[in-house]
Amino acid sequence: DLTQPVVRLASPAELAVAFTEAGVPLELRVGEDAASMPRLLAALGATLEHSVRTAHPLFLNQLYARPEPAGIAGDWLTVVANTNVHTYEAAPVFTLVERAVLARLAVLAGPSWAAAHDGLFVPGGSIANMYGMHLARAVVDPDSASRGAAGGPCLVAFTSAQAHYSYLKSARVCGLGSDNLVAVPCDASGAMLPAELEVAVEAALARGGVPFFVGATAGSTVLGAFDPLVELAKVCRRHNMWLHCDGAWGGACLLSAMHRGLMDGVELVDSLALNPHKMMGLPLQCSVFLARREGLLQSTNSSNADYLFQPDKLHADMDLGDKTIQCGRRADAYKLWLTWKALGDAGLEQRMDRNIALAAHVEARVVASGGAFQMVRPRSFANVCFWWLPRALRPFDAAAASPEQLTALGKVAPALKMRMQQSGDAMIGFQPLDGLPNFFRLVFASASALRFEDLDALMSRMDALGLELFP
Amino acid sequence: DLTQPVVRLASPAELAVAFTEAGVPLELRVGEDAASMPRLLAALGATLEHSVRTAHPLFLNQLYARPEPAGIAGDWLTVVANTNVHTYEAAPVFTLVERAVLARLAVLAGPSWAAAHDGLFVPGGSIANMYGMHLARAVVDPDSASRGAAGGPCLVAFTSAQAHYSYLKSARVCGLGSDNLVAVPCDASGAMLPAELEVAVEAALARGGVPFFVGATAGSTVLGAFDPLVELAKVCRRHNMWLHCDGAWGGACLLSAMHRGLMDGVELVDSLALNPHKMMGLPLQCSVFLARREGLLQSTNSSNADYLFQPDKLHADMDLGDKTIQCGRRADAYKLWLTWKALGDAGLEQRMDRNIALAAHVEARVVASGGAFQMVRPRSFANVCFWWLPRALRPFDAAAASPEQLTALGKVAPALKMRMQQSGDAMIGFQPLDGLPNFFRLVFASASALRFEDLDALMSRMDALGLELFP
Ligand SMILES: Cc1ncc(COP(=O)(O)O)c(C=O)c1O
Ligand SMILES: Cc1ncc(COP(=O)(O)O)c(C=O)c1O
Repeated sequence: DLTQPVVRLASPAELAVAFTEAGVPLELRVGEDAASMPRLLAALGATLEHSVRTAHPLFLNQLYARPEPAGIAGDWLTVVANTNVHTYEAAPVFTLVERAVLARLAVLAGPSWAAAHDGLFVPGGSIANMYGMHLARAVVDPDSASRGAAGGPCLVAFTSAQAHYSYLKSARVCGLGSDNLVAVPCDASGAMLPAELEVAVEAALARGGVPFFVGATAGSTVLGAFDPLVELAKVCRRHNMWLHCDGAWGGACLLSAMHRGLMDGVELVDSLALNPHKMMGLPLQCSVFLARREGLLQSTNSSNADYLFQPDKLHADMDLGDKTIQCGRRADAYKLWLTWKALGDAGLEQRMDRNIALAAHVEARVVASGGAFQMVRPRSFANVCFWWLPRALRPFDAAAASPEQLTALGKVAPALKMRMQQSGDAMIGFQPLDGLPNFFRLVFASASALRFEDLDALMSRMDALGLELFP
Repeated sequence: DLTQPVVRLASPAELAVAFTEAGVPLELRVGEDAASMPRLLAALGATLEHSVRTAHPLFLNQLYARPEPAGIAGDWLTVVANTNVHTYEAAPVFTLVERAVLARLAVLAGPSWAAAHDGLFVPGGSIANMYGMHLARAVVDPDSASRGAAGGPCLVAFTSAQAHYSYLKSARVCGLGSDNLVAVPCDASGAMLPAELEVAVEAALARGGVPFFVGATAGSTVLGAFDPLVELAKVCRRHNMWLHCDGAWGGACLLSAMHRGLMDGVELVDSLALNPHKMMGLPLQCSVFLARREGLLQSTNSSNADYLFQPDKLHADMDLGDKTIQCGRRADAYKLWLTWKALGDAGLEQRMDRNIALAAHVEARVVASGGAFQMVRPRSFANVCFWWLPRALRPFDAAAASPEQLTALGKVAPALKMRMQQSGDAMIGFQPLDGLPNFFRLVFASASALRFEDLDALMSRMDALGLELFP
């Protein structure tokens, strides 16, 4: 509904006042009384009123957006059923559903995956990437599970300079260390350069490191770039490294006959992260880790806890919990299963293709804008990265720009965004990158409700607001 | 509702048939069509029909059970709002609510916590324990964040022999290694023996290890034992170790004037895991990690990602996301906030006390049963661990029992449980422990709907069924 604002901007102090006025202060006091039902309803109302409407067609700020109704229904049911997918005993349906969805995703990834796979729904793409790193280490240095990393080889991991920060966080958590996570240079689109990977691996070897893990990206966070999996797989094979692919953002392309070529080589990777809560339109959280080697999750993570995974209970062989690094685990597979049933393959494909078509439309408008807008990098996926340029900076050439010009341009996107947030018009993210000043990143994660005309109107408003702010 | 079965037991094959008959096969086929609304509703119906009724009063199988209505409402709202608590920009209300709930929990933990705390809602108690280990390492070996564990000191962690397996999984994920996770012996109740901790620490030092982390347990999974935090804190101070307390199960005792003494010394611990989805009755997942040192989560986990935590956006100082090892994160705090508002302090305390009262009642019945039931260990908390004994084994003395008797008794609980599952009567977990054969662990996680008479009736039925199976 475009007549609603995307957001009713309020500061923390303003929100505190609003909730107090609703009779339900944000604070929880000692000796807090039980609130009456009308007050609780007022609290729910205030929450919705002041939350960002991520389902609004013009919420284009993050890699998640409007959830599918079937996804909401599925999630609601799992909340009510309130069980853990650790044992078949506690979650018979959800266990089978999780297995069914993982199997379907494996088929989607291709024949080599369909032939053998292992997998889990995990709480987020970041943690899926951590699983990849953790499994890779278990394979290359099996003793590390008992001995630990101290006293073992100095393992070295590689990702592109454009990779998501979860690789960095995982490297710290896993005890790998950020020094042993090498950022490999990218081409202009933001895709990892295989030749640079080879150079980085040689350098690590020369330092006495043991290269073991390449964390590729299919759909990078900012630019939407796809690393060349076929080429990376060759380097990995040569050096006996595990190839993980972070498809948290771009993995949805597998649903589309038109776009799945972006992930050519996915058959060759050892593990894969997918985030159906991004471009498949599921409510948060819905994230998948898949590995190509059966039994590896179990052998890496099993603790055989007597109290939970008793072999002498019914259908113990179906239990998924011993494969995880968690204990309790939400039935996040269910909402994806229900959504898949609701939309069918064709419906999911259309959603996916629509996001890309919208991105292509914006790119075309930017290019045709006669200088008011300018692409930062060519578009690879559903991310459109562009500047709106004040008149004085048109045409803009980043390489030739003076420091003053760069600083001036860096202030444009935050100011324009703040203005759009204040009017509740639209939400679009911005960020700097590689020394380039702040630019807009318009992303289509779940934009079925958006029409081309809406985007045209949005860009016209941005242009008008920009000229108002920077006359 | 006691007239409904807790579970309608079905094998995987039977469930496959049931879903196919409902017109919505479990499997997702290639070329799957969009299902009609009636079929989707049939799928939802079949799911509820065949899922375990964890809200049933006699679901006493796991450390979670009947969720509070306000918790369900809160969770449903977060599904619809569908946003990530990474930035204030994307989640203004949820960010403030998370801060408010963490602050209240800190007050609950005591003055030292109220004075300074840092915290996050995290996906599960297991991951909360991992945060504890991860932060401890960052403090004791700050270089490890960049250097990694390889080439660093051989860090050694300690937990009780009764601790939850998440410590083991965390030790593997963090690259500590299971060899460097020492299981410290416990007393008969299952509580860690401080003198044994001291011995274990000395032994680790003698081996050249660097003791750095004690993972205490407040409410152990099987026995419900509480480690003596005051004594453990002394050992930790002496050896400069981080004291983490896994209060995933027992932490709810802090809500109760009557029972919070179980966690005496909580003021001295460095970090704390709480699991409101267990005894506070929240729907899964709702888990908390708290640390006593402000800023430590940020300094340990920050990646300063430009694209998300832009300092030049509005209210960037409120963002929680950079503290986490995740990126996207559900607004799990919200349902706890709403439930706290709905029940008030007194309501939460009553829930808690009721669970313990029910456990005490069952223990009394076991003791008074004249030999049909027998306690395995004295009760510490809301876990009642007991055997039902076939006539031939009464009275039972584990120390004097023959191997045949132990084997015979080990078969009783699984058989009796299976029978109760088949009748849908009740679900109660069982497991072996320390060489003791399978026994029942009856746990009260969220048993407000249960009356003493219901438990009496349950025990009579168990006795009758037992005599039927083992005449
Ligand atoms: C004592 C204890 N700690 C930690 C956990 C793990 O909590 P979660 O299942 O939320 O990961 C459990 C789970 O039962 C537990 O009993
Ligand atoms: C490329 C990429 N990988 C991983 C992630 C992390 O996913 P999550 O937020 O589910 O942890 C993101 C999040 O935006 C991402 O863009």
